[in-house]
Amino acid sequence: MTNASAPLFDRVAIIGIGLIGSSLARAIREYGLARSVVGSDRSEAVCAKALELGFLDAATPDLGEMVSAADLVVLCVPVGACAEVAERMAPHLKPGTIVSDVGSVKMAVLRDVSPHLPEGVHIVPGHPVAGTEHSGPEAGFATLFQGRWCILTPPPGASEAAVEKVAELWRRCGSKLEIMEPAHHDRVLAITSHLPHLIAYTIVGTASDLEEATKSEVIKFSAGGFRDFTRIAASDPVMWRDVFLNNREAVLEILQRFTEDLTALQRAIRWGEGDTLQETFTKTRAIRRGIIDAKQA
Amino acid sequence: MTNASAPLFDRVAIIGIGLIGSSLARAIREYGLARSVVGSDRSEAVCAKALELGFLDAATPDLGEMVSAADLVVLCVPVGACAEVAERMAPHLKPGTIVSDVGSVKMAVLRDVSPHLPEGVHIVPGHPVAGTEHSGPEAGFATLFQGRWCILTPPPGASEAAVEKVAELWRRCGSKLEIMEPAHHDRVLAITSHLPHLIAYTIVGTASDLEEATKSEVIKFSAGGFRDFTRIAASDPVMWRDVFLNNREAVLEILQRFTEDLTALQRAIRWGEGDTLQETFTKTRAIRRGIIDAKQA
Repeated sequence: MTNASAPLFDRVAIIGIGLIGSSLARAIREYGLARSVVGSDRSEAVCAKALELGFLDAATPDLGEMVSAADLVVLCVPVGACAEVAERMAPHLKPGTIVSDVGSVKMAVLRDVSPHLPEGVHIVPGHPVAGTEHSGPEAGFATLFQGRWCILTPPPGASEAAVEKVAELWRRCGSKLEIMEPAHHDRVLAITSHLPHLIAYTIVGTASDLEEATKSEVIKFSAGGFRDFTRIAASDPVMWRDVFLNNREAVLEILQRFTEDLTALQRAIRWGEGDTLQETFTKTRAIRRGIIDAKQA
Repeated sequence: MTNASAPLFDRVAIIGIGLIGSSLARAIREYGLARSVVGSDRSEAVCAKALELGFLDAATPDLGEMVSAADLVVLCVPVGACAEVAERMAPHLKPGTIVSDVGSVKMAVLRDVSPHLPEGVHIVPGHPVAGTEHSGPEAGFATLFQGRWCILTPPPGASEAAVEKVAELWRRCGSKLEIMEPAHHDRVLAITSHLPHLIAYTIVGTASDLEEATKSEVIKFSAGGFRDFTRIAASDPVMWRDVFLNNREAVLEILQRFTEDLTALQRAIRWGEGDTLQETFTKTRAIRRGIIDAKQA
């Protein structure tokens, strides 16, 4: 449908130059997906760093200046900052511009961003399911999205052409595309991503409340399983605060199920019910097999 | 203290030829740590497989025959099977033999094995903190223990010479050695290993109870954090059943703390307390830093 070598956009503006924003900017530049790519970050230092690293044509905290000539604006800020950013940039958007984002929650982004957008501006929310435990513009790299899913959650009545242009952008970044209802996205990600992060943060928090002597041994012998949790729990605190505040219902619902299941295992341990434990530990293998078969392992 | 090129033992008998047992046998043979290494497994098929794979000089389900000429016997069976194995092999042990094990729980092993051992036989319980999510004799490899901790928990009054010989065995397998009180070992591992496994099994179990349509999407989008839990939850169900049944008090105690902490976060999410969330998510970074500094990451 589009010429695979031609740029998809004239000018892309990346708002929020962290791990994801800087990775997307790098990919856009490396794969020639736009004639120019500019960025804005509320931190002057981050803008300067991005220019020094050389993956943006321009960068300034002046949001209006950066979005005014863009035909695609991608919000790469924590979900809780989207409303304010949308409000501030709205007067500067030209008609026909597409506004997208990379947030881990999609209902809240639609709710917070849509009301601010002027007529003629298209919203196509997106979520690249990719990342590392590192943060900041130095942490990004162009291949972050390769082979990873990107989920788009366009609202009813969205411009098909706009959705397809954003989809093609992610495909050319190497992503596999999926279109989903926003509410469904938030329920699925609550279990595959939000609950695992909440639990990882909790267990590492529990460990950091131990007395110092034990804590240093926990660090020493972390290879027994704990280490994997600390990596997950090293993700950006503000980003994750906003995820939980903005996907409250779905997270609380799955958390309730998890707690019931954990209580059942706790009871089985207390009463020495080996069969219950072994059954539970066996049935989980089917999911692992599914992940290996789906080549997601 | 010992000639680094001379074998440490005349004959080592490995009881239970799974991931750990077969890895230890391979390492003993590859690094020349014993003149011969034999094995016993209650499964005839596993013994045949081990002989076919060629890392044992002899293997049969006949426990007595395999341990009778050994100067080191290493139990590599699930913790819950140690008592029965100890009872069965006891009449065949020659004086001076060292009995060790690789179990993830140490109080229970001492409690279950010691009473069966005849006078003149030394017990030196051990726990190599190493493993993969795979099981069985094919899954083992000689380098599994390299750079990993091995914790020995000798009882009061243990023979220093026996402890040193077992320590040297693990050092020559590439492990870093640590001596610990058995009760302390069980408390530290409850948090670094047992609780993470329990939680991983629980969350994957919660996911496998979802309706089929959602479950297939959970598998599809597992890269968001869930995938790491499925790997942990793919570990051997019988081994882990026995860990929880045999380290009950320490696991229940740390689980109680974890549940309190999770409830506090749940409450913060429900009431929109962003500061509480952000504080918790920030303090966990110190532990991660500790692990990276300790070169355990």
